[in-house]
Amino acid sequence: MAKNTNIRISLPAVCFVWQIAMIILFGVFIRYNEESDTRWIEHRRRKNISTNLENDFYYRYPSFQDVHVMIFVGFGFLMTFLKRYSFGGVGFNFLIAAFGIQWALLMQGWFHYLDENYGKIKIGVENLINADFCVAGCLIAYGACLGKVSPVQLMVLTLFGVTLFAVEEYIILELLHAKDPGGSMVIHTFGAYYGLTISWVLYRPMLSQSRHLQGSVYHSDVFAMIGTLFLWMYWPSFNSAIADHGAVINTYLALAASVLTTFAISSISQKHGKLDMVHIQNATLAGGVAMGTASEFMITPYGSLIVGFCSGIISTFGYLFLTPFMEKTLKIQDTCGIHNLHAMPGVIGGIAGAITAASASVSVYGQEGLINTFNFKEAVANRTVNIQGGYQAAGLFVAIAFGLVGGALVGGILKLPIWGDPADANCFDDEVYWEVPEDEDENILSRHPNMNHTRGMPDAYQRSHV
Amino acid sequence: MAKNTNIRISLPAVCFVWQIAMIILFGVFIRYNEESDTRWIEHRRRKNISTNLENDFYYRYPSFQDVHVMIFVGFGFLMTFLKRYSFGGVGFNFLIAAFGIQWALLMQGWFHYLDENYGKIKIGVENLINADFCVAGCLIAYGACLGKVSPVQLMVLTLFGVTLFAVEEYIILELLHAKDPGGSMVIHTFGAYYGLTISWVLYRPMLSQSRHLQGSVYHSDVFAMIGTLFLWMYWPSFNSAIADHGAVINTYLALAASVLTTFAISSISQKHGKLDMVHIQNATLAGGVAMGTASEFMITPYGSLIVGFCSGIISTFGYLFLTPFMEKTLKIQDTCGIHNLHAMPGVIGGIAGAITAASASVSVYGQEGLINTFNFKEAVANRTVNIQGGYQAAGLFVAIAFGLVGGALVGGILKLPIWGDPADANCFDDEVYWEVPEDEDENILSRHPNMNHTRGMPDAYQRSHV
Amino acid sequence: MAKNTNIRISLPAVCFVWQIAMIILFGVFIRYNEESDTRWIEHRRRKNISTNLENDFYYRYPSFQDVHVMIFVGFGFLMTFLKRYSFGGVGFNFLIAAFGIQWALLMQGWFHYLDENYGKIKIGVENLINADFCVAGCLIAYGACLGKVSPVQLMVLTLFGVTLFAVEEYIILELLHAKDPGGSMVIHTFGAYYGLTISWVLYRPMLSQSRHLQGSVYHSDVFAMIGTLFLWMYWPSFNSAIADHGAVINTYLALAASVLTTFAISSISQKHGKLDMVHIQNATLAGGVAMGTASEFMITPYGSLIVGFCSGIISTFGYLFLTPFMEKTLKIQDTCGIHNLHAMPGVIGGIAGAITAASASVSVYGQEGLINTFNFKEAVANRTVNIQGGYQAAGLFVAIAFGLVGGALVGGILKLPIWGDPADANCFDDEVYWEVPEDEDENILSRHPNMNHTRGMPDAYQRSHV
Repeated sequence: MAKNTNIRISLPAVCFVWQIAMIILFGVFIRYNEESDTRWIEHRRRKNISTNLENDFYYRYPSFQDVHVMIFVGFGFLMTFLKRYSFGGVGFNFLIAAFGIQWALLMQGWFHYLDENYGKIKIGVENLINADFCVAGCLIAYGACLGKVSPVQLMVLTLFGVTLFAVEEYIILELLHAKDPGGSMVIHTFGAYYGLTISWVLYRPMLSQSRHLQGSVYHSDVFAMIGTLFLWMYWPSFNSAIADHGAVINTYLALAASVLTTFAISSISQKHGKLDMVHIQNATLAGGVAMGTASEFMITPYGSLIVGFCSGIISTFGYLFLTPFMEKTLKIQDTCGIHNLHAMPGVIGGIAGAITAASASVSVYGQEGLINTFNFKEAVANRTVNIQGGYQAAGLFVAIAFGLVGGALVGGILKLPIWGDPADANCFDDEVYWEVPEDEDENILSRHPNMNHTRGMPDAYQRSHV
Repeated sequence: MAKNTNIRISLPAVCFVWQIAMIILFGVFIRYNEESDTRWIEHRRRKNISTNLENDFYYRYPSFQDVHVMIFVGFGFLMTFLKRYSFGGVGFNFLIAAFGIQWALLMQGWFHYLDENYGKIKIGVENLINADFCVAGCLIAYGACLGKVSPVQLMVLTLFGVTLFAVEEYIILELLHAKDPGGSMVIHTFGAYYGLTISWVLYRPMLSQSRHLQGSVYHSDVFAMIGTLFLWMYWPSFNSAIADHGAVINTYLALAASVLTTFAISSISQKHGKLDMVHIQNATLAGGVAMGTASEFMITPYGSLIVGFCSGIISTFGYLFLTPFMEKTLKIQDTCGIHNLHAMPGVIGGIAGAITAASASVSVYGQEGLINTFNFKEAVANRTVNIQGGYQAAGLFVAIAFGLVGGALVGGILKLPIWGDPADANCFDDEVYWEVPEDEDENILSRHPNMNHTRGMPDAYQRSHV
Repeated sequence: MAKNTNIRISLPAVCFVWQIAMIILFGVFIRYNEESDTRWIEHRRRKNISTNLENDFYYRYPSFQDVHVMIFVGFGFLMTFLKRYSFGGVGFNFLIAAFGIQWALLMQGWFHYLDENYGKIKIGVENLINADFCVAGCLIAYGACLGKVSPVQLMVLTLFGVTLFAVEEYIILELLHAKDPGGSMVIHTFGAYYGLTISWVLYRPMLSQSRHLQGSVYHSDVFAMIGTLFLWMYWPSFNSAIADHGAVINTYLALAASVLTTFAISSISQKHGKLDMVHIQNATLAGGVAMGTASEFMITPYGSLIVGFCSGIISTFGYLFLTPFMEKTLKIQDTCGIHNLHAMPGVIGGIAGAITAASASVSVYGQEGLINTFNFKEAVANRTVNIQGGYQAAGLFVAIAFGLVGGALVGGILKLPIWGDPADANCFDDEVYWEVPEDEDENILSRHPNMNHTRGMPDAYQRSHV
C-alpha cells in the first residue's frame, strides 16, 4: 500500500512561504551591528580602538568558519552512510540548516540581541555562530529520523526545533545563568531528546520492510568518515567559539581519549575483534559532546581525558546494546544512534559541568578568573560555586524537559497524514524524493553499446536468471 | 574516426616550458613585500607597530585559506559529478589552478603591485588571495568545456584567461574605480562569458555520441556535494577576503535564501516533486555569486535575502530551460551549466551593485563610511553615488565584452587541430587522458580467483550474452 | 596457511592500558599554560597586554586547525586509495594520530616545555601544533606499511616513533640549533626512513599473493584526492605554523611548481601520454616537503619555484623507477611510496636549507632579521651563517640516523609473531580487521528481492558460471 509521497506542492510551498516570511521579518527586525556596519570606521575612532583586529569579525571569524563546516559538511556527510540515502542525508541537512540559521537569527535575536530602544536585532559574527549552534540541535534530531521522514516534515521539525531551542537556551543561559559554551545540555541533550521523542511518536512497526536498505556499502562508509573527521577536528572550535581559551585544549584531549576507548570496545565486542565502522564514525566524537559544558572550566587536562575515556566507552556500548533494546522494547527507532552520540554524552557533559562548577575555587581559578568564568556579575554577583552547580544541574533538566515535551508535541503534528512521508517499505531510499542517476553498473555496461539493458538492472542478469 | 589524443609531447612541453618561464620571470620581477620579509621586524619598529598581529598575514590569512579551499576542493570536486570524468574534473582543475596562480601573481603584479622605483612586484598575502580570484575566472570557463577539451587546451585557456582577467580587472577596478570585492562582474561574469564563447566556437555537432557518459552516477553526485558545500560555506570568506566586515553577513544570507528557492523550483519542476542533484549542487550557490559586487555595501540583511531568493530561482530555471535551449538553438554546449550559476547571477550581482551604489547615502553609511566604502579619495574624491552607480554598470559591460571577445579569440586558437582534444564519441571519458584503474566490479570478482575476467567487463556477463 | 589475526584481546588491551597511562601521566605532569588558564585575565593585566588578541590562541589557532586537518583528513584520505583498504587507511590513521598526539604532548613536553621550578609541562596551542607535527612522522611511516600490519603493530610503531621523534627533534633543534620549521628533516626525512626500515625488516617475500588488492578503483582514487588537496592547500600553514610570514609564500610557490612538473613527468612516461593518479596524488606535494626547512629563510620566490620544480620531477621519477627497484632489489615494500614523497624531498629540503642558511647575509636579511631568523642568540649568539649551514647539514644526518636505527629496532620488535598481522595473501584487505558491509552490487540487486544471492557475489554470476 504505497503512500502518497508527492511533495511537488508542499515542499515548494513551504520553502517559498517561509523564505518570504524570513525576508519580511528580517526587513522589520534585523540590522547590522556596529562591527558589521560601514560606520565601524567612525565607531572605532570614537571608542579609541587602535586596530581593526579588535573587531569581533577578526577575533571570532575563523572559529565561526570551523563551526560552519561542522554543520554543513560534518553533520551532512556523517549522514551519508546509508547505502541509498546519501542524497537525502547531505541534501536535506543542507536544506534545513539553510532555513534554520535564518530562523535562528530571528528567534535568538528576539531573546538575546534585541536593542530595546531601537526595536531591532543587531547582528554580527557572534549571531552567526549562535545560529549554527541552534541549527545543530535540529540536525541531531534529524539523525534519529533519517530516512523515515519527508523534507516537508523536516522543515516543520526545524521550525519548531529552533523555536524551542531559543526558549530553552534563554531559560538555561539567561534565567538560570548556567554556563554551557559548547552546548552539552542546550544543544546535544535537547536535540537528542527532541529527535528521539519525535521518532518514538512516529514509530513504524513494519520498518523491517526496508531493512535491506538500512545499512551501508563500502564507499558510503568512507563518505561518512569525511563527516566524522571534520566534526572531530573542528570540535575544539565548536566548544570554544564563544568561550575562553582552555576550551580548546579540554575538548581536544577528550576527543583523543574517546577514539582509543571506542576502538577498544568496538574490537572487544566482536568474535574476531573486528572493528565496526558505525562505532568509529560516531562514538569517537562522544568526548566532544561531553566536554560541551565544562570546556572552559578548569577541569584540568587529565580530567578532560577521563571524560573522553568514559564517554567513548558508554557511547560504543550504546550502539552495541541500547539501540537494539530501544527499538525492540521502547519502540524508538533511532537511525543514526543519536541516543549514543548525543543524549548520553550530553547528559554526562551536563553532570560533569555541574560537578566541576560546584568544586571550583579561587585558589584554582584566581579571583578574577572565577568571576569571569562563571560570569558572577550583576544579578548573580553573590552566587557561590555550589549554587552555580545546582543551577547547572537545573539547566540539564530544562534541556531534557524541553526535548521530551517539545518532541511529543512536534511528533504529534508530524503524525498528520499530510506531509508526504514514505511508506515503511520505502524508507531509506533516495528514489522517493530524488531523481537518482543510473547505477554504477550501467556505467560499466554503457561502454559496451551492443548490450541491451534496462535501468538499474543489467540485461545479462535478467536473462541468465530466466 | 578517432582523433589523435596523444599528449605525451605537448603536455610535458607546455608544463616544462611555462614553468621555466615562470621561474625566470619570478627571478626578474617578484620579491617579498615588507610583511613577508625577514626585515619585517625592523620595519615594524620603524613604523611603531605594536604587534605582529598588524601584519596582514595574520589579518588576512584565514580568509585566504578559505578561498584557497574553494579554488582547489570547491571547484575541483564540483566538477567530479560526471560518472567517468572525476579524474579530469578534479585533476585538471588542480593543474590549471596551480599554473594560473603563478601567472596571475605576475600579471596582476604588473598592473597593480609594481614598485615604480624598484621595478619589482612585491608580494604578500593579498596577492595570494587575488591570484586565487583570478584563477577562479578560468575555472569557471573550464566548467563550460568540461570533458570536451584536452589538458593542453586548458593550459592555453588559462594562460589567456589570466591575461584577459588582469586587464579587465585593471580597467574596472583602477580606471573605472568600480567596486567588486567578490567579483560578480570581474570574476563570474567575465569567466562565464569567456567559457561560454569558447564552448560556442568549439561546438561539437556530434556530441550526442558520448551522451551516455554525460551524466552522473550515485557516488559521483555525492563527491560533487563536497565541492558544493565547501564553496557554499566559504563563500562569505570569498566575498570579504579583501573587503569589509558586513560582506560576510550579506553573503551568508544570500546563500541561505538561494538554498530554499533552489529546492522549491527543483521540486516544482518534476512530475512527482522529486529533487534534481544538478540543481542542488549548483543553483544553491547563486546567492554567493550575486552578492559579489554589493557584498560590502549597506544592502541590508533583508536586501541580501531578496538577492539570494531571486538568484536561486533564476539559476534553477536556467538549468531547466536555458541550458537545453542554448545547446539546441544557440549551439552552446555548457557541461556544468555555468551560464546558470555564474553568468546570470553574476550579471544580477553587477546590476544589484550598481543600484545599491547609486542609492547610497550619508545617512545610511555615515560620512566616513561612505568615503571608505566607495573609496572616494584622490582622483575620484568628488564622485557622487549616482555617478558611482554609472561606473559600476560600465564595469559590468567591460566584463561581458572581455568575456565575449576574449572567448572568441581564444576559442579560435583552441580550434586549431593540434591540441589533442578528444573525438565526439570520446568526450567525458577519463580513459582518454588517464590511466584508469580496473572497475569496482572486478574488485568484487577478484576475490573469486577461479573466475576468468577481462578488464572492465566480467566474464560472466560476456558468456551469458553469447 | 592463515595467520591468527584475531586482535580482540590485544587491541583493546593496548588501547585501554595506554590511555589509562596517559591519564595518569597527564595528571602528574600536564597543566594549562598562562594563556589557556582562567588566570589569563589577571596575567594579561599584570603584563600590560592591551588585548586578548596577543594571546597565542588567536594568533596561532587558525594555523593549528589547518595542520590538524592535514593530519586527520589529509593523511587519512591520502591512504584511502587502495580498492579494499580505505577503512584501514583512514581509520587506523585516526587511531594512531589520536594516541600519538597525547604521547607527543608528554614527550615533547619533557624535552622542551618543562617548567623547571614547578616540575610540570604547561601546554598551550603551540604544543598542540607540535604534537600534530610529531604524529606526522609516524603517519608517514604508516604509509610504507599500509595494508601489511595490524593496528596493534601500528600502535607500537607510534609509541616508539613519537619517542624517537622527540629525542631527534631535541638534538636537532635544541642542541644543534638547526632550524626546521616545516620539518623537512625532523618530520619527513626521519619519518620516511623510520617507515622504510621497518618495512624492510618486515619484508614479505610472498606479498604478490595479495597483488590483486594492491591497486585502486575509480572512486578510491577520487577519495584519495581529498587527502591530496587538503594537504596541498594547507601545507603553507604547516610550514609557517610556528614560523614567520614568508614561509607561506615560499611553500605556496614550491607546491605550485611541483604540480606542473609532476603532470609533465607523469605524462611523458606513458606511451600515450596518459596521466597516472598515483603521481598526481603524491608527487604534487613534494614541493611542500622540500620547503620545510628553508620556508622562513630568504630563499626568494623564484628559489622556491626551483625547489618545487626539481622535487616534483624527482618524486615522480621515484614512483616510476625507484619504487619497483627498491621492492625487487632492496627488498623494501613501500605501499604509498613514501620514499618518493617524503624521503627524497625531505633530504632535498634539508640540503636546500643548509645551502640557503650558509649563504644568508645581513644585506639580504637585515641585521635584526638575520638574528631573528636563525635565532642567533644566547649560546649561539656568535655563530656565523657558514657554521649554521654546517649544523643544518648535521641535523639532516641525525634525522636519517634516527630513522634507520630506530626503524631497525622497532622493526625487530614488530617482527615478533604476537601482533596479529595478516598473512601475505590477506594484505590490503579490510576484511581482516573490519566488519565490511555488503558490496555495491548487492545494493542494486537488493531492490529485486526475487533474486537469490549470497554475500559479495550475485547469484546470477554464479549460476551463469556453472
